[in-house]
Amino acid sequence: MSNKSKPVLLIALGGNALIKKGQEGTIQQQFENLRVPIRQIAELSEEFRIVITHGNGPQVGNIMLQQESCKKVPKLPLEILVAQTQGQIGYMIESAIDEALMEMGINDRLLVSLITYVVVDKNDPGFKNPAKPIGPAFSRQEASFLEYPTMVTPKGYRRVVASPEPLTIVEKREIQSLIKRDFIVICCGGGGIPVIREGRAFSGVDAVIDKDLASALLAEEVAVDIFIIATDVAGAILNFGTSDQKLIRQLTKESADQYIHEGQFGVGSMQPKVEAAVRFVNRTGKRAVITSIKDIKESVVLRAGTEFI
Amino acid sequence: MSNKSKPVLLIALGGNALIKKGQEGTIQQQFENLRVPIRQIAELSEEFRIVITHGNGPQVGNIMLQQESCKKVPKLPLEILVAQTQGQIGYMIESAIDEALMEMGINDRLLVSLITYVVVDKNDPGFKNPAKPIGPAFSRQEASFLEYPTMVTPKGYRRVVASPEPLTIVEKREIQSLIKRDFIVICCGGGGIPVIREGRAFSGVDAVIDKDLASALLAEEVAVDIFIIATDVAGAILNFGTSDQKLIRQLTKESADQYIHEGQFGVGSMQPKVEAAVRFVNRTGKRAVITSIKDIKESVVLRAGTEFI
Repeated sequence: MSNKSKPVLLIALGGNALIKKGQEGTIQQQFENLRVPIRQIAELSEEFRIVITHGNGPQVGNIMLQQESCKKVPKLPLEILVAQTQGQIGYMIESAIDEALMEMGINDRLLVSLITYVVVDKNDPGFKNPAKPIGPAFSRQEASFLEYPTMVTPKGYRRVVASPEPLTIVEKREIQSLIKRDFIVICCGGGGIPVIREGRAFSGVDAVIDKDLASALLAEEVAVDIFIIATDVAGAILNFGTSDQKLIRQLTKESADQYIHEGQFGVGSMQPKVEAAVRFVNRTGKRAVITSIKDIKESVVLRAGTEFI
Repeated sequence: MSNKSKPVLLIALGGNALIKKGQEGTIQQQFENLRVPIRQIAELSEEFRIVITHGNGPQVGNIMLQQESCKKVPKLPLEILVAQTQGQIGYMIESAIDEALMEMGINDRLLVSLITYVVVDKNDPGFKNPAKPIGPAFSRQEASFLEYPTMVTPKGYRRVVASPEPLTIVEKREIQSLIKRDFIVICCGGGGIPVIREGRAFSGVDAVIDKDLASALLAEEVAVDIFIIATDVAGAILNFGTSDQKLIRQLTKESADQYIHEGQFGVGSMQPKVEAAVRFVNRTGKRAVITSIKDIKESVVLRAGTEFI
């Protein structure tokens, strides 16, 4: 199949592609977990051009803990920690793909992992009312010593930061150029490094961008054909966690809005994925799917997941 | 000037491009320091195709200290820390170039920062006798609690790791393809993430690759025309630190070998740079220069630095 006729897939890998619930998250566990999605993606790369994005929640939380434990060196701002996780996870995904391709006997595929930053608006309402919990949980007493705002969550006191809307992916021209040439591109890790544009400069800001919304924007900006959000459940599920729970196989914007209104989807988990998928389909008329990490390949041919129409 | 006639420059930035001697290394200091080399590089990008590599010594040392201060999360192996610094420093260099290009009114240059790994031999003699000190210095008592080998240095006890020879840059095809299309490419940070190839897989190893030797290899593998090593002194200097000290303006392989034999160049500082420059010139017949970070532009037209012939 010639490059030009290969449709473009964007696969957004959830944090659980690397660290599963309940795992400590050693590097061996992370590489082992990655094998499941990456083998499928390597296989898909024969018939599709591939863009991969990924979360970074547990990894950036760990780096924050390490920073806070050490008084000897200057602390780095949050956007630099996001950049560190792009390096870390980008390397892990890239080398896992290399390994899968070698196992398949393919040695001519081009493959890059890119640093990516994403512009946000300095007047985004998120900056006035930071509401996104990140990093580890602290006791009330520990939290009183922290230098930043916290909120009470079921796990304890957690740092909150702004989660502004992504406006544009700074590297979109480069990514599009690479996709055209059939490079597999890993990018936009952790939702991208958040920056604001001030005059002729970009400056990093203390925020995290939702990974699925950033991925939806990237998918739109670089003309992706199918946008796949891979997570730890089978798709968008009604009555989740009850005996009545039911996977939705096809979802329209209207039904999605209604279910969100009913509070069917977890606010910090499934809801932003549904919103990202709806937004992409609405703006582009193309396909989006939310699926389990183990069913990425099946979801492309509509045998798994929730399809957005 | 058309892309094809633009010669290719590889500029290897020393760690002091980001953190100067005696500085604590806050993020503001690092961005401020970067302006000096980056403005010159942005200007050079009008007439040259550009590849940038960089060191990571102080940054990876800081992350090691943070890791060691924190018992709550799993420690990551050294190659993952190198990957983190590629993310961190790659982002900083990329956004500094973006800023310089915007100041110059240039908005169509393509620019990427790539994760890069570099193959080493698992039988490299470096693995039997780790001799490269990295990270912070400890007291004798502190050192006795560490989990890894140390050596005594003038600063105190420091961790030692292997520093194996770089054999090949895994992403060389991708980097060459990007250079051809006049992308500015930031890559090979910290000498690259060291990996060994075992059967059909790459595995990271506990080592650091000399940044200048890795840059020389990259320069050879992607057909660079001029290889510039930018550091904190004016070039290779005879009788360094004495009243007789003298910048060498041109250096042949034979003289370089002789001076190394005499111990003219610092073993962990200038000597590997001289060796890297000699190696590149010897293997390719092209030009290499060692120069000060503030004189990068001047060195391209032979008005500064030590030229290798």
